[in-house]
Amino acid sequence: MNLTLLADYYELSMMQGYFLHHENPPVVFDMFFRRQPFGGGFSIFAGLQSALDLIGSLSFSADDLGYLEGLGTFRREFLEYLAGFRFQGDIWAMPEGTLVFPGEPLVRVHASLIEAQLIESALLAILNFQTLIATKSARIHLAANGGTVIEFGLRRAQGIDGALSASRAAYIGGAAATSNTLAGRKFGIPVRGTMAHSWVMAFGSEAEAFEKYAEIYPDGAVLLIDTYDTLGSGIENAIATGVRLKGQGRRNFGVRLDSGDLEYLSKKVRARLDRAGLTDALITASNELDEHIIQQLITRGAPIDTWGVGTNLVTGAGDPALTGVYKIAARKVGEEWIPTIKVSNNPEKVTNPGTKQVWRFTGPGGTPLADLICLDEETPQPGRAHTFHHPMGDYRSFTMAEYDRMTPLLGPHMRSGRVVGEPAPLADIQARALAELGSLDDTYKRLINPHVYKVSLSDALNDLKSRLIRESLSRGATR
Amino acid sequence: MNLTLLADYYELSMMQGYFLHHENPPVVFDMFFRRQPFGGGFSIFAGLQSALDLIGSLSFSADDLGYLEGLGTFRREFLEYLAGFRFQGDIWAMPEGTLVFPGEPLVRVHASLIEAQLIESALLAILNFQTLIATKSARIHLAANGGTVIEFGLRRAQGIDGALSASRAAYIGGAAATSNTLAGRKFGIPVRGTMAHSWVMAFGSEAEAFEKYAEIYPDGAVLLIDTYDTLGSGIENAIATGVRLKGQGRRNFGVRLDSGDLEYLSKKVRARLDRAGLTDALITASNELDEHIIQQLITRGAPIDTWGVGTNLVTGAGDPALTGVYKIAARKVGEEWIPTIKVSNNPEKVTNPGTKQVWRFTGPGGTPLADLICLDEETPQPGRAHTFHHPMGDYRSFTMAEYDRMTPLLGPHMRSGRVVGEPAPLADIQARALAELGSLDDTYKRLINPHVYKVSLSDALNDLKSRLIRESLSRGATR
Repeated sequence: MNLTLLADYYELSMMQGYFLHHENPPVVFDMFFRRQPFGGGFSIFAGLQSALDLIGSLSFSADDLGYLEGLGTFRREFLEYLAGFRFQGDIWAMPEGTLVFPGEPLVRVHASLIEAQLIESALLAILNFQTLIATKSARIHLAANGGTVIEFGLRRAQGIDGALSASRAAYIGGAAATSNTLAGRKFGIPVRGTMAHSWVMAFGSEAEAFEKYAEIYPDGAVLLIDTYDTLGSGIENAIATGVRLKGQGRRNFGVRLDSGDLEYLSKKVRARLDRAGLTDALITASNELDEHIIQQLITRGAPIDTWGVGTNLVTGAGDPALTGVYKIAARKVGEEWIPTIKVSNNPEKVTNPGTKQVWRFTGPGGTPLADLICLDEETPQPGRAHTFHHPMGDYRSFTMAEYDRMTPLLGPHMRSGRVVGEPAPLADIQARALAELGSLDDTYKRLINPHVYKVSLSDALNDLKSRLIRESLSRGATR
Repeated sequence: MNLTLLADYYELSMMQGYFLHHENPPVVFDMFFRRQPFGGGFSIFAGLQSALDLIGSLSFSADDLGYLEGLGTFRREFLEYLAGFRFQGDIWAMPEGTLVFPGEPLVRVHASLIEAQLIESALLAILNFQTLIATKSARIHLAANGGTVIEFGLRRAQGIDGALSASRAAYIGGAAATSNTLAGRKFGIPVRGTMAHSWVMAFGSEAEAFEKYAEIYPDGAVLLIDTYDTLGSGIENAIATGVRLKGQGRRNFGVRLDSGDLEYLSKKVRARLDRAGLTDALITASNELDEHIIQQLITRGAPIDTWGVGTNLVTGAGDPALTGVYKIAARKVGEEWIPTIKVSNNPEKVTNPGTKQVWRFTGPGGTPLADLICLDEETPQPGRAHTFHHPMGDYRSFTMAEYDRMTPLLGPHMRSGRVVGEPAPLADIQARALAELGSLDDTYKRLINPHVYKVSLSDALNDLKSRLIRESLSRGATR
């Protein structure tokens, strides 16, 4: 399916407006988000490759143009312009898997106003969702404390691509595998699965169902033991099969719990497995899990090895959307770049003007200390002390003098409409996310009420922002 | 993209297990849900056509089979079977747009066990999500109390198809239009949109931005007035443009509020518009709206005509997923159909056995009174009194003697893998949903703590369920 029309209708009507008014200057747009999801202290940036793939392929088909013509709003000359449309801008962005924080630009789009406007909705849809889910997955990964997390969300995901792109993002955030076979094929994610209650019910008895399964899958047989009576027939029938498989030298035997009190049951089941000599049998748990439930079960010592997480992972339960927005930061008038600002009665909603770069200051072991948003033309000197201004533009600031390195986070990912370099393998993106997460101080990783990581403005950006706030209200003046 | 692999991996491993054990009897599976989303009293069934399209097109490509072979789990004879696989079963379902309630089968799949297993995850993903969003949309439609609702969700939706199928479902539930141009084209939904803050900021002044917009779109110009100062420059500049357009005989002028206190601002703006003679100017409001906020604003008399609802509509905020499940209800052994049941320690999770039909009993004006789940072989007599047994299988029952009609809700939608009839136009599905909603007693439509609509079991189904519960535990017996 051609996705060029995956745009809010007002993008197209504004594009026509700009086109007919010959108002199509080079511009810079920023994509950023305003609030950490899930009440957490970090997010994991994800979705860039999916967005670049879409942007690189934008092209109105004859059918698209026929549809637009039929709406009766678009003029022939604009439709002719669209017929030749390709996105020819540059895109700077952070690499996928980067730890990201509110207020800093994750993506910077350099294009003509009309081009920049077309991609707004699709770019936001993809980045907002994948970043949300990668973040949720990282929270669940942290809660599992070294246990294996498998994404089981297909049947409760929000639409087909809601499932596929959630599988991609969940893997980036630390899930070891997905149950979604198509996501496995499309993105190269390991696929995993056990058995459903319907398998157990399809045979004459639970014992027969387990034996028939083990016949076909003697290695890695994970038996679902809660169809009839978990601590009665379920565990006993499973142990009979497990002991037989062990006698044959088979490996990776396990059981799955999908209902009931998972702490109580996992402890009882572990003891029964151990007593039967199946000390290496693994226990998988599922059933409406999320990071809080997993953390609590681990704190209570529930001996669960693998966590199957569905609905709450793939829908980002608790926060249905990342609050990512796409705002104009600069436009070229004649030969000059003019920084732009959107002022609001709410200081958190005032945008940061100009073309910007984000510098991450790190300490020993690469641990992130704070991020400084600078104007792109600044070249902040490594080794020197830097003033970090609070982004609200008030009196608060601090000086950063002790740090090991400062690294720019935004790099070129598309030039003149063409993707730069090869896409990173998804496993590398996951490795980056987990390495960055590993280097982050634990206080930022508390699931509830975490330490707030500082994202600040440089001297130059702070001065520019203050000046533009003063100037801006006059632009709304009445005639 | 071929979606045949859009299945949980365990479906495929179970399918191979059934195949190798020659365990592939005809079966009946039910799709039903267990709990109304959003704490509400009804749901609107949606997504069937999308699911049938997918099921009708299932076919493993050579690439799919190559991928599966590469996983090292699947045997040649099974892969050869998959190469020729087509879904050849029958599907009975309620029409899209039907009011639906927990526990009743919305879809009944008649197929071989292997076929029925393959479609589980995709069927659930599509029906769970579209039903969730159609229901959310209907709640927002009710709250808007005759006002126009427009779905604005693309940029915050969960993935590309999370946006497209949400637009479809939102329209079914009562939204008048979508901002998503591709959804408009794909499903024939009206598209609408106003302008973004970036339009206002792209010109030298707000006044110029409004005039330039009105030049291109003199009819239906809806001006966004909160970029600089809503009650200062915003409304004044808008009125100047509106008065000029009115003088030229132009129509459908309006303003949009996207921030601030919508009650306070809409009342002030209405008064200013009226004072300027723009009594027919429309006020559109947006900004994180949901059914509760809209209901409160309407109760408070906020003069808002059109509601742009995004995130909370397309993500089903408050309930990220419908709890739809897919459970085996019967299987054929020899020439006999054997009803199956899944017993649980939780009585709400015990399934209803056998092949079933749902009869809706209605009173004057077609108002739904209660639903009775019967065995399909029963032909309940119209006009007679019927006993309605509580679905938990306890002592509770009542007699329904006074009703006008009883109507079976499940009908054939696919026979031998082919879709029956032509797809209903989406506008007809919306009309059905709104008519059914209109006929439902208001007590079921309260947004919070509604009256619970009764879904009951017939005498015959109640007897069968009781008997199978007694028999079932013995099937889990240990060896």
